Amino acid sequence: MAERDRYALRPGEVTVDHPVQPDAVVQFIGTIRTPFATRADCPRRGDPANGPVCTLEVLPQWRPGLTGLERFAAGDILYWLDQSRRDLVLQAPHSSDRLVGTFAVRSPVRPNPIGLSHVTIEAVHADRVLVRGLDCLDGTPLIDIKPNRCNPPGIG
Amino acid sequence: MAERDRYALRPGEVTVDHPVQPDAVVQFIGTIRTPFATRADCPRRGDPANGPVCTLEVLPQWRPGLTGLERFAAGDILYWLDQSRRDLVLQAPHSSDRLVGTFAVRSPVRPNPIGLSHVTIEAVHADRVLVRGLDCLDGTPLIDIKPNRCNPPGIG
Repeated sequence: MAERDRYALRPGEVTVDHPVQPDAVVQFIGTIRTPFATRADCPRRGDPANGPVCTLEVLPQWRPGLTGLERFAAGDILYWLDQSRRDLVLQAPHSSDRLVGTFAVRSPVRPNPIGLSHVTIEAVHADRVLVRGLDCLDGTPLIDIKPNRCNPPGIG
Repeated sequence: MAERDRYALRPGEVTVDHPVQPDAVVQFIGTIRTPFATRADCPRRGDPANGPVCTLEVLPQWRPGLTGLERFAAGDILYWLDQSRRDLVLQAPHSSDRLVGTFAVRSPVRPNPIGLSHVTIEAVHADRVLVRGLDCLDGTPLIDIKPNRCNPPGIG
């Protein structure tokens, strides 16, 4: 219930009456450092061209996995939105009074609260990666880094 | 051990000696139907322009979440690569004798075996979505559908 209390329902929003099914397990591979301390600070969507540089801190056992990432200028970052409720199936997006399905918005509220940002890679160090284009809270758990041969949308 | 046995190590590959940490739980929201019955059938990367049409079958409780998705021509699909080992930190990619870090390849073998494909959306029905651009086995568990305002790489 504590998780639900953080997000009050807006009028008309619809939840599913199913407990979360533990079908598989995610392990965190690090922590994301951003300048966004509260949800109000977070941009609606990250900007891979002009957004602030953020840091992906990688846990020691996974650091060798960064080998070769420096050859890429872009990536897809996955992270776990650990403060989001997971039971909304119809939601009322910010700045809209129309209800839309959870899979028709990129809101953090979803059955699996996995965030995805297309980023530009600024630097790869032995223990961390500097990127632009994230939109998440400081301290968000990191779950994957995937290299991308294509530039993120909006980048030359 | 059964999971590991499915993927023999290639020379020089390095695993981490850490059990999977159960930091969070994923719930499957449906099943993906593709023409790819074996790993050998799967393309190295999906083709959102010319790849075969695949079906995202959505579980009944999450179907209202598709409302409004028909307004989008593209999306990011997340799925759980349930047959992949999770302990490789340096891997020898297919068609290369060089070892690279797990985060410098888009291989299904990663600490969190989450697949991500940028797809074109062909049709949205009440209970399923037809897309092009997937690369995964038939029967792969679906974990998220995110709409995208931009076309996938390689599309107009």
